[in-house]
This record gives sequence, C-alpha cells and structure tokens, in this order.
Amino acid sequence: MTTSVDVQSPVHLTAVAADNLPAVTPDLEDLYREFERELLIPLWTEIGDLMPLSPRSKAVPHRWRWGSLRALAARAGDLVPVGRGGERRAIALANPGLAGRPFATPTLWAAIQYLLPGENAPEHRHTQHAFRFVLEGEGVWTVVDGDPVAMRRGDFLPQAGWNWHAHHNATTEPMAWIDGLDIPLQYLTESQFFEYGRDEISDAEKTTPERSRSERLWGHPGLRPLAASARPATPGSPLLAYRWEATDRALTDQLALEKEGYGGTVEPGHAAVRYTDPATGADVLPTIRVEFHRIARTAETEPVKETGSSVYTVFDGSGTVTVGEKTWSVGRGDLFVVPSWQPFSARSQAGDSDSDSGALDLFRFSDSPVFEALKLSRVVREAAP
Amino acid sequence: MTTSVDVQSPVHLTAVAADNLPAVTPDLEDLYREFERELLIPLWTEIGDLMPLSPRSKAVPHRWRWGSLRALAARAGDLVPVGRGGERRAIALANPGLAGRPFATPTLWAAIQYLLPGENAPEHRHTQHAFRFVLEGEGVWTVVDGDPVAMRRGDFLPQAGWNWHAHHNATTEPMAWIDGLDIPLQYLTESQFFEYGRDEISDAEKTTPERSRSERLWGHPGLRPLAASARPATPGSPLLAYRWEATDRALTDQLALEKEGYGGTVEPGHAAVRYTDPATGADVLPTIRVEFHRIARTAETEPVKETGSSVYTVFDGSGTVTVGEKTWSVGRGDLFVVPSWQPFSARSQAGDSDSDSGALDLFRFSDSPVFEALKLSRVVREAAP
Amino acid sequence: MTTSVDVQSPVHLTAVAADNLPAVTPDLEDLYREFERELLIPLWTEIGDLMPLSPRSKAVPHRWRWGSLRALAARAGDLVPVGRGGERRAIALANPGLAGRPFATPTLWAAIQYLLPGENAPEHRHTQHAFRFVLEGEGVWTVVDGDPVAMRRGDFLPQAGWNWHAHHNATTEPMAWIDGLDIPLQYLTESQFFEYGRDEISDAEKTTPERSRSERLWGHPGLRPLAASARPATPGSPLLAYRWEATDRALTDQLALEKEGYGGTVEPGHAAVRYTDPATGADVLPTIRVEFHRIARTAETEPVKETGSSVYTVFDGSGTVTVGEKTWSVGRGDLFVVPSWQPFSARSQAGDSDSDSGALDLFRFSDSPVFEALKLSRVVREAAP
Amino acid sequence: MTTSVDVQSPVHLTAVAADNLPAVTPDLEDLYREFERELLIPLWTEIGDLMPLSPRSKAVPHRWRWGSLRALAARAGDLVPVGRGGERRAIALANPGLAGRPFATPTLWAAIQYLLPGENAPEHRHTQHAFRFVLEGEGVWTVVDGDPVAMRRGDFLPQAGWNWHAHHNATTEPMAWIDGLDIPLQYLTESQFFEYGRDEISDAEKTTPERSRSERLWGHPGLRPLAASARPATPGSPLLAYRWEATDRALTDQLALEKEGYGGTVEPGHAAVRYTDPATGADVLPTIRVEFHRIARTAETEPVKETGSSVYTVFDGSGTVTVGEKTWSVGRGDLFVVPSWQPFSARSQAGDSDSDSGALDLFRFSDSPVFEALKLSRVVREAAP
Repeated sequence: MTTSVDVQSPVHLTAVAADNLPAVTPDLEDLYREFERELLIPLWTEIGDLMPLSPRSKAVPHRWRWGSLRALAARAGDLVPVGRGGERRAIALANPGLAGRPFATPTLWAAIQYLLPGENAPEHRHTQHAFRFVLEGEGVWTVVDGDPVAMRRGDFLPQAGWNWHAHHNATTEPMAWIDGLDIPLQYLTESQFFEYGRDEISDAEKTTPERSRSERLWGHPGLRPLAASARPATPGSPLLAYRWEATDRALTDQLALEKEGYGGTVEPGHAAVRYTDPATGADVLPTIRVEFHRIARTAETEPVKETGSSVYTVFDGSGTVTVGEKTWSVGRGDLFVVPSWQPFSARSQAGDSDSDSGALDLFRFSDSPVFEALKLSRVVREAAP
Repeated sequence: MTTSVDVQSPVHLTAVAADNLPAVTPDLEDLYREFERELLIPLWTEIGDLMPLSPRSKAVPHRWRWGSLRALAARAGDLVPVGRGGERRAIALANPGLAGRPFATPTLWAAIQYLLPGENAPEHRHTQHAFRFVLEGEGVWTVVDGDPVAMRRGDFLPQAGWNWHAHHNATTEPMAWIDGLDIPLQYLTESQFFEYGRDEISDAEKTTPERSRSERLWGHPGLRPLAASARPATPGSPLLAYRWEATDRALTDQLALEKEGYGGTVEPGHAAVRYTDPATGADVLPTIRVEFHRIARTAETEPVKETGSSVYTVFDGSGTVTVGEKTWSVGRGDLFVVPSWQPFSARSQAGDSDSDSGALDLFRFSDSPVFEALKLSRVVREAAP
Repeated sequence: MTTSVDVQSPVHLTAVAADNLPAVTPDLEDLYREFERELLIPLWTEIGDLMPLSPRSKAVPHRWRWGSLRALAARAGDLVPVGRGGERRAIALANPGLAGRPFATPTLWAAIQYLLPGENAPEHRHTQHAFRFVLEGEGVWTVVDGDPVAMRRGDFLPQAGWNWHAHHNATTEPMAWIDGLDIPLQYLTESQFFEYGRDEISDAEKTTPERSRSERLWGHPGLRPLAASARPATPGSPLLAYRWEATDRALTDQLALEKEGYGGTVEPGHAAVRYTDPATGADVLPTIRVEFHRIARTAETEPVKETGSSVYTVFDGSGTVTVGEKTWSVGRGDLFVVPSWQPFSARSQAGDSDSDSGALDLFRFSDSPVFEALKLSRVVREAAP
Repeated sequence: MTTSVDVQSPVHLTAVAADNLPAVTPDLEDLYREFERELLIPLWTEIGDLMPLSPRSKAVPHRWRWGSLRALAARAGDLVPVGRGGERRAIALANPGLAGRPFATPTLWAAIQYLLPGENAPEHRHTQHAFRFVLEGEGVWTVVDGDPVAMRRGDFLPQAGWNWHAHHNATTEPMAWIDGLDIPLQYLTESQFFEYGRDEISDAEKTTPERSRSERLWGHPGLRPLAASARPATPGSPLLAYRWEATDRALTDQLALEKEGYGGTVEPGHAAVRYTDPATGADVLPTIRVEFHRIARTAETEPVKETGSSVYTVFDGSGTVTVGEKTWSVGRGDLFVVPSWQPFSARSQAGDSDSDSGALDLFRFSDSPVFEALKLSRVVREAAP
C-alpha cells in the first residue's frame, strides 16, 4: 500500500501512466530518475492519493470482541510482568489498514490494560493525552500527582499530558480497563516527551479514599474553587474522575425530558453527554473528545459523517452498528473504529428479559478537537435510508 | 429623586483656586463664563476629582440589618400589591454616598424581594443581569422561559439578561430573598431593554418539580449535554439553580483538604467557590461575579483591596467585618457593601453553643467581570497589621 | 460641580402616585419614611426611570462648533499655564444632560487640548484609556514611554492605559488637537489610578524622528515583530500612531472598489475603517472603539441605532447630520454626540468649488467595546424614510 | 524502519528481546501469534519507538540546492504539461527519512512550482492550507476567488483552505516559486477535501492590477474595513499578498532600532517578523506559521530546539546553517528542513563585494500553530557552545 522503503535511496518513483498523466517517454523516465537522485517527487503522480475529493481513510472499519481481548489480556497477565521499561500491560488495537502499527485509527490509540492483584504499574509522565474508561471490576487506583483516584465500572478518568501517574491494584482480583491516548497523533507529528517517575508509589497513595482530592475540589457542578493551587499547571481537566452515577443520571434525565416533551436529546431516543473541563467547558483533553451516548430501546441514530476518527466501546446493552459498508452486531465490551468520513449509525437491540432496559450504551472517543482547533472540522448528517 | 438639571445653563463653573490652579483674575472669570455658555469645562479644575491617584469611591461602606429589612418588607407586603407596572415587591439598598439613588454600589443593585402566599410576580424580561439568593424559607418558583425552578434556603439562581421570568409563591407562608442585579451599571451606561411577558404563568408552570429542567440538563459535573437545544441563546449560565447542598459540600471539602494538609483553601481557614457557567467556566453572569466564602471558626482573612465593588450577605454564623475604616459585627442576613479599593477583611466569631460550627458563611457578589473584561482589574493583598 | 450630597439623610423618597402605583395612604407614607431612615428605596417607584423599555439617555444630542472651541482654547493659552497639577490645557465638552459634569456622554470624555510653542505637558500615566486625534497643525510630539511620536493633521494616536506620556511643542506655532478618554466610565465605575512622571522629558525625547519606534516595529501591515520586547505589557495597541496617509488611502481604496463593482463599502458611498490593535485585531483601546467614516459626495447613510454613545468630529468636508430629533449642518472641526439608542445618519454636502471632493470625513469614537465585552450590544439599522 | 506490510495479515509481531522485555518463551510466542490473529499489538514491545524521552524524528535534516531544483523544474516544463488532473507542475521535496513520500517533514509539503509563459494552472480549491513564496521573477497572477494577485520576488501569498485559486503566467518568461502546504498533516489526519473549479479563468482575471482587491481592503496597517463583505468566510488571513517591500522595511527597521540601542531584534543581529492575519493577529494560516528572518553581517543565532518541524529557504545572502549534527553552506534559493527537536542555528557569511549587505535572509515556515493549538509546544534556547 505504501511505497516500500530503502534508506539508501529512499525515493523510487513509479511513473504510472494514470488518467491525465503524461505518457512515459524515455525523456520523462530520465527526468523521474533525476527526481529520485535529488529526492524529489512530482505532485502530478501523487495528487490522487494525497488530495482526494473527500477523506479516503487508510484505516478500515473494524470490530474487536471483548471476550477475545479479555482472555488474551489474562494470558498476558500470566506471562508478562508489569514493570519499568514496558511500563504497562497494555495491548493495543491495530487497525488492519494502518501498516501493522498499534494504531486504532491514524490519530488514536486504544488498548486494554490489565493489572493483577497487588501489582503496581510504575509512575511516569508523558505529553500524550490519555484517559482510562472502566468496563468491568473495580479496585485499582490511578495515582495522579500523588492523588489516588479510585476506578469503578463506568468511571471515566482523564489523564492530560505531563501529569505523573501510576496504577495500583489493591484488590484480590485482576482488573481490566480501556486506555485511550493520542499516541499515533503525537508519533506522527513528533512532539512526544516522556519521563520516568518513582518506581513505587508510597503506601499512603495506596489507600482508598472514596473520592479523590480532585473530585473534592472540582466535582461540584458549576462551582469553581478559588484557591490558586486548585488548578494544575498542565493542560486539560483538573477533574480526574467522572463517575458512572453522574453519567448515568445525566442520560436518564435527557431521555425523561424527551418523554415529557421538552427535548434534551440529540435526536429521538438518543441521549448524549460530552466530558468537559469544568474550569473552561472545553473538551476534557486538548486532542481527544470523549462522549457517552445512550440509544434507547428500539431507537436508531441518523447516519453521520465527520472528519476525523472515533473509537467506540459498548458499555452496556447490545445492538447493531453500521460503519461505512460494514454492519456488526455488538455487545458489552466490544470495540470498533469509525474512520474519517465513514457514515456511522447505531441501533439498539432489546434483549429478551424484561429486566433489560433495552438501551445501547456507547462510550466514544474521537480526535475532533484537533480538527476544530485547526479549522478542518466538517460534519454531515444524512437521513437514514 | 435624580438631580434636577437646568437644560438652559447646565454648566456652573466654580473657579476654585486650588493648588497649582491659576489665580482667578477677571480675565479668567470671563473665560470661565464663556466656557459655561459654550458647555465646556476645563480639565485643570476637575482633575483632582476625575483622576485621583487611586479609586476614591463615592459609595461608602455601610451595613444593613436583616431584621429591619425583613420587617419593612413584611409591612410592604401588607400595603403594596405585586403586579404589572411595579413588577416586583423589591426594596433596594441605597448607598448613602450615591446621591439618593437605589444603588448599593455604583454598579450593583441589591434588594430584598418579598412574595405573599399565592402571589405571582408577573413575567418580564430585561437586559439587566440578575440573580436570586435565598436567605430563608422555601416554596417560591422562579419560572424561567417556562421552566419552574424551586427556591430554597442557600440556593443561588442566576438570571442572565433577556430571559423571561416570573415568580410564584406556592406555599402558605410569605417568602423573602435577595435580588442582585447590574441595574446601576446599565443605568449609567444606558444599555437597558425591558419587555413585558404574560400577566400570569400557566398552571403547569406552578407545579413543583424537585429539579428544574435546566438542572437535569446542566447540573451534572463536567458533563455537557450534546443536544443543540440545550444551550439557550442568551448569554450567561444555562444552569438556573446552584443548590445549597452542593455549595456546602464544596466548602466542607476544601476545609477538610486543608486539614489533611493538601491545600484547597484560599488562605488558612478560608474556603471559597465561584459560581460559574458550566458551558464555559466563565463567571455565571457577564457583569456580576458571585462567590461563596466560608471563614472557619477562629479564622480571619487577610485584607484585600480590589478595583470594583462588592455586596456581601451573611448567610450563616456571625463575625466581624472591616471595610476601610469601618468595623461591624454581623449576623445572619445582614448585608454590607465594600466600595472600590477599600480594604476588606472578615473574622468569624464562634457562638456559645457547641452545635454551632463557628464558621462565618458569606455570600458575595461583585462587578469584577466588568473590570477584567475592560482590563481595569487590580487586586492587592495586604498583610493584616 | 458635582451634586451635593446630604450624608445625614441622603434618601428622599417622593411617593409619586404614578400609573399602577399604590395610592399613598398615611400608612404607606409612614413606610416610605421608614425606608428613608433605613436607606432603602423600593423598585416600584423607580422602575420607569431605571428599567425603561429601551435606553433613554440622560445625555442629549449636541453639537459644538470648532471655531468657538478653537478660540476659547487660544484664550486659555494666554491665561492658563500648563504644568504639574492641572497637567493639561484641555477643555472638555460638557453634555447639557449630564448634570454639569465634563462628560460628552455618560462614558466618554472629549476635549480640545492646546499647547503653545516650546511648552511641555508634564509626564504622567493613568488607567484611563486615551487617544489624540489631530484636526490641524503639526509639530507636537507625544512622548510615550520614551518614544517620541510626531502628530500631524489626520493622525490618530492611541494611548492605552498606564503608559507614561508627555507632550512637547517643538514648533513656533500653537497646536490644538482632540483628546478622547474613558474618564466618565472609569469615574462612574471607580477604577482609576494616576501617577506623576518626570517633570520634564529629556532633550533626546524632544528630537523629531519622522516615525516613532512603535511605528518602525508595528507599522508594517500583517507583519508582527518576533522580539519579545516588542509587545508592551500594557493593554491596547502597541502601534502609537495611525498616520493620515494610510487612513485616507484605505478609504479611497474602498470607494474605488465600490465603483469597480466589488463592494468594499459599508453601504453605497460610505467607506469606513476601524483602528485596531495589529497584535490582536481587536479594538485599538479596551474601552473605546475608534473609526473613520467617509461619506462620498451626494451619499447618505442609513439611520442606525446602537446601545452606547459616540462622539463625532468632522475632519473634512461639510454635510448634514441627524441625531434623534436634531439635525445640524456641520463643517470642519465641529464635534457632536450621539447618545445611546438615538438614530444617527449623515449626508455629505458638496461645496461649490470643483476642487472640493465633496466627501464628508467623520472621525468617530464610541464605547462599543464595553457593551460587546459585557454582552449588552445591540445595533439596529433602519431604512431611511 | 517501519514494519513491512501485508494487507491479508497486517500485524507481524517480532518479539524482540529488548531491555526489560520478557524472555520469549514458547508460551509467549504463542500469545504473540494470537495477538496477530486478533489484530493486537502490546505496548511493551513498541514503547521505545512510540514514546521516546524526547521527539526522535523520522525526518532527517536535509538540504536541497536551488540550482538543481530550478533546472529540473525547467526540464519538467518541457516534458509535462499543466492541466486538469495533475493540476500543477509542482515538484516536492521528499525527505529521505519519510518512506519515499513527497513530504519535506511529517507535516509539511514544500515544492517548486513552474509555469511557462501563457500557461494556466486550472482553478481548484482544497482544505489544505497553502502559500506561495516567490524566489525569482514576476509576472504570474494567482487568482483567488476572482481576485488576481500579482507575484513578485520576495512576495508572500497565503492561500487558506477552501478558497478557489488558479495561476496564470502573463509574461514571456517562465516563472518558478515555492509552494508550501500542510498536505502531509491532512494526509495523516485524513481531513482533506478537494473540488475542481473552472478550467480557465476569465480574461478579466488575467489583467494585471498593481494591487489585488484584498490588499486594497486589508493592506493598511491597523485599519480594518467595516464592510461586512470584507472578511471572507474561509479561515486564515483575508490579506492575499504580503509584499517584499514591507517585509524588507520591517527587518531593516528592526536592525536600525537595535543599532540605536532600542532593542527590536530577537537577539543581536537577528531581525524577524511573523506573517499574521490582520483581522486577528493570529498566524496567517491555521496550521502553518510563516516567518522571515534576517541574520545581519557577521551575526549568528543561538541554537533553538522546538517541537515540530520547519522548512527554510534562503531568500538572499549566504551563510552556514546547522541542523542537529549537520552543517551546510547555503546560498540563494537553497532549501533545508529542520526536524522536530533538532537544534537549529544560522550564521551569515559576508560576500566579497562591498555592495553585498552581508545579511542572510531566511524565509521559514513551520507547523508551530498545530502544536500551540494542541498545547504540545515546547521551545528551548541553548547557549551556543
């Protein structure tokens, strides 16, 4: 797919006689060889790939099954220790279109991370913006700049760049969660810094407060602490945990408001919230937008195309999702990617039991803030067929 | 009530022979009379008043006692009906330095509003930014653009400009609360619009939901609803009530964090939050900053001087406050003003009973956003003597 | 000059029985007296004045003739020295509606300043944002933070708050220009600081460079100097002079573009530019918008109503202007004010001679940035009758 | 360098036993094969490449000689027509570290474009932000949204995304210039749109005004046209040409100010300006920063390391530049790249003749706005050894 690479003579120009391209005469062949020697490539042979009429993503729609991920992570738990150097027992989605790199999309990293009872993932910090989202279990503490933050199912923990952080599993069970980062974006734009912290966090940091200090300062709706020290120097949200109870309540409220006739939803049966920095109202991370969508029983979303890519995780329920030309059934824990400009829609699929709410709960993260900051964002809603 | 103006000859120039002023010769007197005829005034006679070395407020420090306010409001309840024309049974603080106008400070209006059982304050809207803060009682609903918002002790209800609003007392008791507005600022800058709404709100709007629709959409910390309709077109916070429970918890958290050694307070024993727009993190109203300060038992704040003026209300506890050269004892419900550039400090005064927390709870509003927007803000902290 | 205030009993409540006001019974009279004692004023007697349906300006439309201003300034030159204390030989427009204060409008100060040959206006700085606009003559240098800035007819010199500045007349002729400041706004909001500088500027600062240092750094269109020191710490534009040649060329270009069929004007025959901070594109001063309007021969502007007030000076040409219910003929140097929400329109009046361009050149300053910053701006264009 | 690609089975995991990596037991080999089947890649084998301690650019420092570029462009002029499909006769720098792609750096495209007398490059528009910078000759018009913009040596023409544009050579000589775009950034982030325009521009657009309409509206320093139509809807600067005369004068002014003792330069002998959007003061293009640096005779710049990459062109003079471990002599027209976090410094080299100013004039463009927008910018100045 990509040009093969030879570092001694990196440019190999294949003068393909495409539409509107000049016929390849011996003189032109000569010129192309000269271009190669001088490390030059003409626009006219490349423009179709470089400047398409609309985004043609190298990434492809793909779905990963939670069952397989979970089982492989457990096996890695048996075979691969966590420690300095490897840093984390994280296993990343590798989009089959992205040249064998551990990139879910061209800009986003998505991985399952797995920590055994008593294990510590050592402290470090990096410029890559990151978050954790907990699909199952509880009992791990992410310690951010000395502030232990509990992790429980449904919790979202942003980790903006250049904050020290470590993980500690204080329970007797292994725990798995989703890591999202902008590793590919920073890899491609080459802006990454990384620093090692302490090899082990202190005992005090392994204690288990119900609420982190960040939540006690920043977790009160619309109330900003006035202490100068309350706002960290690093970018991104000072609130280190967005608890499931609040997210669930917000979505429940929206669907109830809709039922009462007051709107509140994105479209019929489709509730959604964005995680934001309470100090600014902006996206929770400078390069990553994070949202939670609830598709009510029997509801279906209108197909949407956007510049930029997304990774979705099914938090709960089951349903059918369509990405470009692919359609999959999905259930709890499954992950899938939506490449740039591929239409996406989702439909909930009520289970048999009455106790099932029938809603499809989707956690989503995307690179939208990048496109908005660079004035390259486009969104098109298309009426479903 | 306003100064009478003689349009024929409005300028009366008194050529006072101040320091460095030219001696008043007959020629100069002639010139000054000519200035008057041409509606001109020289800088050199006025500069001391107009351009002082630092702000010299016309407003003076003053304290109003809640007991008197409350009693007079009740008498007004007997004598003055609420209805179209007068619009509200609101009685405003008139700073004795401000020429007999109903202005607490040069930019801020503060009033006690009083509503009898079953009464309706008719619907209107205005560009003046407003809020209510409840000192006692409960049972009134402010209906904002058709959304009934309950009012209970300690609740803060912002009311950004140009939203329709009405009040209804659904209980069997009269209720009183504090109104804060930027009436003086808009009066002086002459930017006010006002429009009458419906004479009476519908029965549906008199019902009593526990939470307003605005709270169900915007009251979840750090979670922004994605529905396009969720954000009103008017400026200021879309969240229409900041409940006392959240405010109290935030302050309690800060003092606990301080005790645990983690900071979180403005200064020792001084917890404080600012009410903010959850969609932007900015001040809750474009022209008014609103904060809640808790001075813990035995604590004392460092004197602070700021450009711009504030109005304080004692929500709970008792203590001593110093504004410029004045010092008063204050208790629940008392109001006082801090004029521009007058140093302010407060000290809590534990009551006798053990059940008393000993904290002094101060609700504050100020015109700081005006000065910050115009790049005229200055704040100086002075070590207490 | 300011209204006298009786501190003992400042509030005198006249219980006027207006529409919808309660009848003044003896009990109500009693209550009103009680209000006065407690320094309280009810909303219901004041609401008509305080909260009108649309801005009802205290300021009135008024025009000042340049001939009279100029002559009185010259007489002041004979009688009143310039020096420390009075600081400037500036004579301000006093709007007849504004209670005998030297305020052109509720927020804006406009004055003629006059400096004799060899005179120095001593150095000072203040938080009031200021500018000079030169109506005639040349030869004075405004020395801003040690940078001498020449002043010539048509030049606009912004002087953002808290920059040191002095004036020096290096010629053998007196010189007069217009000073614009936000003195009333800062007087009413009480945010002013003032500091004396050196009594006399150095000889080096009296030299006469063609271009100031600020112009050499910031006067190149779209080119920002990278030196860290290039941007002053104070707010407002770092460019200290906007020369007439550039303004004139910009307006000429707009009218030519219109004639060529490419738009470029505000409306037919009406060219206009706004002076902006080249580092941000924002208004040249945080509280004052400054614009130059050219009404071409035989053109007429559509009436416009805006919140906030303006002062206009006729730079060149002659015409007719209408402000609210007033209409005046105006010529070179005349000044007039447009109070808040009064419709304004202008019409050019070609002179007899062919050499006359027939255009009406209007220099305008207003308080619009204040209203935009506070989200209180409204503008309505009305088709001319 | 990068993993080789097989689309059927894209992930081939090489379990290299690096430092701190687990020993590759048969069980681990099994697990890795399982990872491959499931399209997963662990962090622990990749972290060194993905998350380096500081940016380790794939791009390498490289210099291209203008003589070779110019000659090859002329040969392409003989052999390759300009027309729809290929769109432009542009020949791009292909950084030898970037896998044979026509990318000067990971985010930036730099090409020489060549147009023969009478030729038209057909109209199109694209989301890629672009500019032209003229190294020699004159006579081509870039027609932007119907506004013909002349191009002359030293002129900088920004071309923000989604504006229609075409080129026309109105002279009897071929002309060559530098094209800069963010093609690689948009290719990697997959946000590109492209649209064909008219095949040929009208005769009227081939006329040759001295100044474009954009310059007549926006080319007056600090003066913003008030016409609503003056600001285009697309992002980026409305000013379509920054003329050499202004740039040269700005740099000359800075060096003169330095000589007079007033600063104005970045460091001794180093003058620099940034091209900015006159409507906002922001970078001239949302993703590309463009600057002009003049290193005076005998001056040398302090080494600077920055996140993100730059492309430099020698506009005039000659000198020595150091990028990381490479040092080259450079002269007029040469281009070179500075990869992320590689220290860069430059030294001017006076020619023999007295007529030579001895200054080294460097035109630079970089991706800095991307890093600033995403809060990933770092700059370190290092004292030269």
